[in-house]
Amino acid sequence: MSSPHGQAIGIVMVEDDLPRAQLRVPYAAHLVGDPDSGVIHGGVITAALDNASGQAVRKHAAWRADMGMATLDLRIDYMKPATPQLDLVVEAECYKMTSSVAFVRGVAFHEDPLDPVATSVGTFMLGTPSTPRVSEADPGESA
Amino acid sequence: MSSPHGQAIGIVMVEDDLPRAQLRVPYAAHLVGDPDSGVIHGGVITAALDNASGQAVRKHAAWRADMGMATLDLRIDYMKPATPQLDLVVEAECYKMTSSVAFVRGVAFHEDPLDPVATSVGTFMLGTPSTPRVSEADPGESA
Amino acid sequence: MSSPHGQAIGIVMVEDDLPRAQLRVPYAAHLVGDPDSGVIHGGVITAALDNASGQAVRKHAAWRADMGMATLDLRIDYMKPATPQLDLVVEAECYKMTSSVAFVRGVAFHEDPLDPVATSVGTFMLGTPSTPRVSEADPGESA
Amino acid sequence: MSSPHGQAIGIVMVEDDLPRAQLRVPYAAHLVGDPDSGVIHGGVITAALDNASGQAVRKHAAWRADMGMATLDLRIDYMKPATPQLDLVVEAECYKMTSSVAFVRGVAFHEDPLDPVATSVGTFMLGTPSTPRVSEADPGESA
Repeated sequence: MSSPHGQAIGIVMVEDDLPRAQLRVPYAAHLVGDPDSGVIHGGVITAALDNASGQAVRKHAAWRADMGMATLDLRIDYMKPATPQLDLVVEAECYKMTSSVAFVRGVAFHEDPLDPVATSVGTFMLGTPSTPRVSEADPGESA
Repeated sequence: MSSPHGQAIGIVMVEDDLPRAQLRVPYAAHLVGDPDSGVIHGGVITAALDNASGQAVRKHAAWRADMGMATLDLRIDYMKPATPQLDLVVEAECYKMTSSVAFVRGVAFHEDPLDPVATSVGTFMLGTPSTPRVSEADPGESA
Repeated sequence: MSSPHGQAIGIVMVEDDLPRAQLRVPYAAHLVGDPDSGVIHGGVITAALDNASGQAVRKHAAWRADMGMATLDLRIDYMKPATPQLDLVVEAECYKMTSSVAFVRGVAFHEDPLDPVATSVGTFMLGTPSTPRVSEADPGESA
Repeated sequence: MSSPHGQAIGIVMVEDDLPRAQLRVPYAAHLVGDPDSGVIHGGVITAALDNASGQAVRKHAAWRADMGMATLDLRIDYMKPATPQLDLVVEAECYKMTSSVAFVRGVAFHEDPLDPVATSVGTFMLGTPSTPRVSEADPGESA
């Protein structure tokens, strides 16, 4: 991810020819959520899963660069605390894409994807940049 | 949040006597996800919702400081892009707490909580620090 | 709900002028999930929340009958078992609608919505019936 | 599933030696959600995914019959309408189990699990029947 926030976290994209996306988050002191344990913050894991999921959509054959894309929703399940000092690896794959929605799942782990730190499922809206997902025809209200 | 990651993002807790938690994320260049638009990264919004949700559990009357707490899962719905240059306000409330689980919902917005940027629901496991949520009696496998 | 499945469950729509949708599921033996306890099955609660959520979208001012609609995703949090012999009341409201997506939350309870049996959040795709949500331009694959 | 509601829907458990659970929902008129199209109701799919997920926890080696179990939350993503006249097959696997929580994912399809009608992720609380998940120490309030 070359976004400023991705750079601030220190996310490193892993380039390969696989349909899934893979990235790496090197362990770093500024990512820690609990100073006593040294465990990185859940928000870092979530940001990495979100990044990898978007990247998986971009890698999917049916996605066209002019389509635009926005995260619609994301659910993260946290299985165990990340281990201090270890890098985090995050993989995501787009397992279904329709004309307007992409479905993606991801996993965050240290060394073994079958022993995950967290998993995710998310949906992404596909659309052209000129017709953003959220039109303000109806500003939305809450009862 | 006084965690290193919370400080890196720049999260400011708002102290008050309300049962809900409130925090503020001042707009900053290093939070940007898309340099062209200046929109902050979704992962920042998620980290802030996660932080506020945990804080809401801590503020809830039934939570005891010695219980320990871990995010079990979190779902975020993204309604519209955050507006560049504007601060983000995040509020969360714990609307149900049992002996072992807390249920929390949150909202991220600029000025009007009824015109949200994102909303969230999450569950938190409650337990004592000496009996962590994830025992390794079963290391978990995937078929 | 006049759908065959809604009738089989015994869902009763409550008509009113409120923006939210309300329905009632009378307690019945064929809805029971656990014969020992008499507690109704979680799937009934989910079906009712799904029904009410769709109805909430239909009641929302911005929805037009010719738009078509499909549940994209639904998350249900189960707070406590339903009480045997008591009817279930389900309410849902559409709290945000854009040109293509409606965001809905719901609650299932017996008498007090602040003491819920379950809560839900869901997203619905809006579109015309002639252009169904899931085009088969890309049949989707999984790695 | 031998529960009254499972029988009402017509769910048929498929017994095998695999760690995952599999069940079948034969197409039937009373499951239809939209009489015009003959498409079964989303609530049926959800009930089947919920059933299969619980069954997957029971099949998991680490689960003990005296533990008790309750669905904590469930998220369903709906990929495409079920095809009228076709049976629905639902599979679920427990991919991680700790001392108190089981994580399960599921898929509903007609013939090919890689062309799903819906997918799910859910968490289940594990505990003894004598100490139900939802103690009423704190009856829960909402702000």
